[in-house]
Parts: sequence; structure tokens; C-alpha cells
Amino acid sequence: MKLKIAVLEGDGIGPEIMKQGVAVMDAIAAKFGHEFEYTPAICGAHAIEEVGDPYPDSTHEVCMQADAVLFAAVGSLKFDNDPTAKIRPETGLLAMRKKLGLFANVRPVATFDCLLHKSPLKEELLKGADFVVIRELTGGMYFGAKYQDNDQAYDTNIYTRPEVERILKVGFEMAMTRKKHLTVVDKANVLASSRLWRQIAKEMESQYPEVTTDYMFIDNASMRVLTEPRYFDVIVTENTFGDILTDETSCITGSMGLQPSSSLGEHTPLFEPVHGSWPQAAGQNLANPIAQILSAAMLLEHFGLNEEGALIRKAVTASLDANVRTPEIQVEGGEKYGTTEVGEWIVNYIKN
Amino acid sequence: MKLKIAVLEGDGIGPEIMKQGVAVMDAIAAKFGHEFEYTPAICGAHAIEEVGDPYPDSTHEVCMQADAVLFAAVGSLKFDNDPTAKIRPETGLLAMRKKLGLFANVRPVATFDCLLHKSPLKEELLKGADFVVIRELTGGMYFGAKYQDNDQAYDTNIYTRPEVERILKVGFEMAMTRKKHLTVVDKANVLASSRLWRQIAKEMESQYPEVTTDYMFIDNASMRVLTEPRYFDVIVTENTFGDILTDETSCITGSMGLQPSSSLGEHTPLFEPVHGSWPQAAGQNLANPIAQILSAAMLLEHFGLNEEGALIRKAVTASLDANVRTPEIQVEGGEKYGTTEVGEWIVNYIKN
Ligand SMILES: CC(C)[C@H](C(=O)O)[C@@H](O)C(=O)O
Ligand SMILES: CC(C)[C@H](C(=O)O)[C@@H](O)C(=O)O
Repeated sequence: MKLKIAVLEGDGIGPEIMKQGVAVMDAIAAKFGHEFEYTPAICGAHAIEEVGDPYPDSTHEVCMQADAVLFAAVGSLKFDNDPTAKIRPETGLLAMRKKLGLFANVRPVATFDCLLHKSPLKEELLKGADFVVIRELTGGMYFGAKYQDNDQAYDTNIYTRPEVERILKVGFEMAMTRKKHLTVVDKANVLASSRLWRQIAKEMESQYPEVTTDYMFIDNASMRVLTEPRYFDVIVTENTFGDILTDETSCITGSMGLQPSSSLGEHTPLFEPVHGSWPQAAGQNLANPIAQILSAAMLLEHFGLNEEGALIRKAVTASLDANVRTPEIQVEGGEKYGTTEVGEWIVNYIKN
Repeated sequence: MKLKIAVLEGDGIGPEIMKQGVAVMDAIAAKFGHEFEYTPAICGAHAIEEVGDPYPDSTHEVCMQADAVLFAAVGSLKFDNDPTAKIRPETGLLAMRKKLGLFANVRPVATFDCLLHKSPLKEELLKGADFVVIRELTGGMYFGAKYQDNDQAYDTNIYTRPEVERILKVGFEMAMTRKKHLTVVDKANVLASSRLWRQIAKEMESQYPEVTTDYMFIDNASMRVLTEPRYFDVIVTENTFGDILTDETSCITGSMGLQPSSSLGEHTPLFEPVHGSWPQAAGQNLANPIAQILSAAMLLEHFGLNEEGALIRKAVTASLDANVRTPEIQVEGGEKYGTTEVGEWIVNYIKN
């Protein structure tokens, strides 16, 4: 298969982990006879410094021409300390999501048995948990009308029927490919926007008679993912709730550095780690490249290259089992490997 | 001291736990020579059935005439299954908050060493955690302009400067009485309303030079309370984020049935358990009365009756240590006590 891939390494640890992600894709291409063509493009703090725009038109062009975007992370310390700056890495991220129409952010929440001890949760609660959170990514308060002056400010949490239908469809269809259990998370006892979500979800239920659909308020969901994570199969929720819930759920796995995600929508699909740009660690060969590598696996699987994806996953698991791990997940007394060394180990495993 | 107390027992387990809350207050009154005058009033599902209004004017009158409101919980199964019904227990709750001007919901997150094993979190992470979450309770999306038709819906997350100033003031002042560390939780990298919060908080910092103030995005906070709960002293946040975060934080203590809260504002202060009305358990002598009893302690402490509050807390801890516990927190093989028996044990402890 031929694939044109836009490579957006972004800021902080981005370049380092991206290097390993691409190396893994190259190993897969060689082994399976694929042709992956990479086009790098700038974004984030990096792009603000170079051209004054965190998601320049030229980058958007590259993304639009590609079959898929492999993205690392954006954000730098300079901007972290001033979240009110007008031009910031995050505004580029939001522009990218909107322009590429990436309305469905899919975050698998998978645990690794050998890393359960790293979770803040008790192992017996977490073991075997395996669910997916689908977050609406181009609507709600992120993009609704905003206003701010010195005396008041507002954001508008707005959703239209087509926006809600298409994201719920992703949820129902994802449930059909899994354990057929969909949980719609909302706040329908308070919010009008949630009531619209719930109304539409109820209408759609009959189209998916095999799916068991249930409804949960976000405040309750924020507890239930802690007390009973195995309850869930597929969760679907709106943008702001999804922002909070996906961070919470990726954190409970104890291995945030291992969680990939995909963002799907109208144009080119995008694949990226759940974690951020960790500017403090940039250039230090410390960051875990696995979330980036598993994002590459999700990318390949998106194009039906399931054997290729499975091999990457097998290689990742083997590296963990062999204790070839970056510092944050290394067992006590174990040797600590760098970003490069972990990536190279996985590449070698794939080659052989 | 003479205190007029409005008693709103509400629905589900409300009446049972309220009975124990009042019994404890009576024991305190007798021991310390106080005079507490109770006026019961209806609210919740109960009140919808009786008079068609979950917070009738007559109940509001009783609350306005009182020095404090002792509240249990509202909600019934009938309404839980239909969150879109126009008249529902929650609308009464929101009306009550708004009419009483209860803009500051104060939720102490305290752990009990003997119950750490009940937490979904690992004990070593949680031990010693002791913080307070202050949730703004009468603004934001809960009360901003709403709209819904068949094709679109919105909610408005609006805050004005005076609303933000008064709740931040509660936060700063609470921090002054504690470890002088205030964390403002917002989403200032995306929301205009959060940027106003952050701007005002930064302006107010200089009035509280002794307080270390920091800022955290809500998505990050939802992780940090899990990975490092001891980091926090006082958290202050807006209504919707506070709804999610306070449920998450009360759940991690492993003892939701033991968490009281106060809601303070323009008129009569209100004291209530963090947990809900648990309709499934109503009338079964199963519910833990301790959150209600500790809400009574918070009430007394609000009026400076610190010795009285301390005695209640001592009695509660003694009951836990004596394993006089309701089923959900009883140790394996231990005898299970009912709502009444736990309440009576605590009352007897206070008397003697
Ligand atoms: C950086 C920020 C704007 C972004 C968001 O809130 O969507 C991030 O938290 C995420 O979840 O991708
Ligand atoms: C019942 C509901 C309207 C309420 C809220 O969201 O405020 C509840 O969850 C709470 O936290 O007191």
C-alpha cells in the first residue's frame, strides 16, 4: 500500500518521539512491502516562532494532501505560563481540528498487566479494563460564541443535530465492533445541550438494536471510571466533558506515555499520543516513544493494515516484558532506557 | 445559643439519615445547654407529589426565617429515568441554591485512616490527603441562557466580575485558615469565562500575599487529584467543573457516605451530605448517617460552636474505630449496623 503521511512533530519531546514513530513505520514498510511517503510540516510554539502562526496554511495544505497525519504534541513553557496570550500553540491545535473536520477523538483506554502497579488505582479494580472514550472534538464550548471584557465573560456550549448525530454514530458503530455496550455521558438534568444529545441518542437506539445503550451523568461517570472501570465498553461524550474524562481515564491506566489516539472526521484522519509535549524533558532522551509508536499502529489499522498494527503492538508488549522501558515505567532497580533505545529495540523486534 | 433550623429531609434515604442528624444535634443541645428549634419543610420528588413544586414558596419561607438549613438529599427513581421532565427534584435544588444565594459550595475532602482500604486509590497515595474544594454554585452553565429545539441547543457559561470575586474571596480566605495554598482550577487556554476567572484571581493575589496561588487546567486537575491528592489544600472552581471534580474527589476517599458539605452565600447557609438520595435503599435502615451527622457538625462550627463540632467528630471517629459501621464500610466478617444503630451509638457517645 502507498500512503502519504503528514508528519507534524511539534514541540518539546515531539521531535524525539516522532523519530521513533517514523522508524517503526519504516520497519513495517520494509517488512510488508508498503510505501510510506512522509512530508514534514511545522506547528505549535515552533511555528509561532518561525512564521507567527501555530497552524500555518502551508501546514494545513500538507495535511489536506496527505492520507493521514501523524502528530506528536505541541506546547512550550513560555506559553504554559501565559494561557491568555492571543496566539498560542493550543489555538493552532483547535484550528487544525476544525479545519480538518476532526470531530471524533477516539481514545482507547487499555491497560498493560505489567504496568498495573503504576496506576493510582488499585490493581484489582483495574485489571482487565478495556474501553474506548469517544470525545466530540469540534463543537461545544470550544468553538461556540465567546465574549470577554473586564466585567463579564461567556462561552456558548452549542450543538446542532448533525453534529450530534455524526458523533453518536461513531459511538454506536464502535460499540458494534466491540462488546456492544455504549454509554452516553452527559448532564441532561441541567444542560439543554445535553438534553438534545440524549434525545438524539434515544432516537438512534432503534437503529442499533444489538447495542445496549445507557446514559450517565458526567459527575457520576467521573466516579464510575474509578470505582468500576470494567463496566465500560464505549463511552461517547461532548467536547468539554470528553477533555476532562479522557485525561482522567488515561491517567488511571498508570501509563499515560503509552496511550495513543485517533481523530477522525471530514478530511484527513490524525493520529497522536494522548500525552502532551513535556517541554521540561525535551532533548533529554527521556520520553516514552510508545504512545507515538502505537499511534502509528492505529494509523495503519485505520487503513486496514491489521497485521501490521498487530505486529507493532506485539513488539511494544515484548519491549515492556523485556523491561526495555523508559524511566517513568521502569521497575525498581531495572536498567533505564532512553527514547531512542526503546524505539530501536521495537524496530529490531519488528525486523526479526 | 439559640438556633432556628430548617429541616429539609427530602427523598429516598433522606428522612432516615436526617432523623439521626437531628438526634445528634439534640444530644449536643442537651449537653451544652443550647436551644435548637427545628422547622421541617418539604422539598424534592416528595414536594412535587404533594404540591407540584420541588421547592415550594412555603419551604423557601421556612429557610429564609431560619439561621441555618439542614438538608438531606432529593431525587427519586421515577425522575432519574426521565432527566428531561420539566418539573424535577433537581430543578428545586437549583431554585433553592439560587433563591438562597448559596454561591459557595464547600466540600472538605477528608480521609479516615481506617477506611483508606475502601478507596479506589492506592492507600499510600491517599493517606494524609486533606483538602477542600470550593465550587461556585449559582453561576455558569447551570443558570446561563439556555435554548433547545429539535435541531440545536445551547447553554451559556457566563460569569460576571462580582460573581467571580466573591467566590475567589471565599477561596483565598479559606486558604488563610489552612495551609495557605490555593489552586484555581479553570480552562483558561480555551474558555473566555476561565480567562476572566484567572484575570481576577491574579488581581486578587496581592491582597493575600501569604497565600501561594497556583492555576491548573481542569483536565490536569482531574488527574492530579488521583496521582497526588496531598498536593492540594484549597481548590476553587466554577460550577460545572466543580460538579465533576467534587464528585471525583469525594469518591477517592472511599467513604462518600461520610462526606458533609456546606453551601454559603447571601442568605441562610445550608449543610448537607455530598451523597444523593439513594432511592433504592429508602426505608431499609442501610444508609450511612455519618455524612448527615458531620453536616450538623459543620453547621455548628459555622456558628462558632467548635467544641460541639469537635465532639461530634470525635464520636464519629470512635464509632468507626469501634467498627460500628453501616454495611458499605464494614470490615470483612464484622457485624453490620443499621442507620439507626450507628446514629444511636454516636448519640450515646456524645451523652457520656
Ligand atoms: C491543549 C488543549 C486545548 C487540549 C484540549 O483541551 O482539547 C488538550 O487538553 C487536549 O485534550 O487535546
Ligand atoms: C442533581 C444535580 C443538579 C446536582 C448538580 O449538578 O449540581 C448534583 O449533581 C450536585 O452536585 O449537587
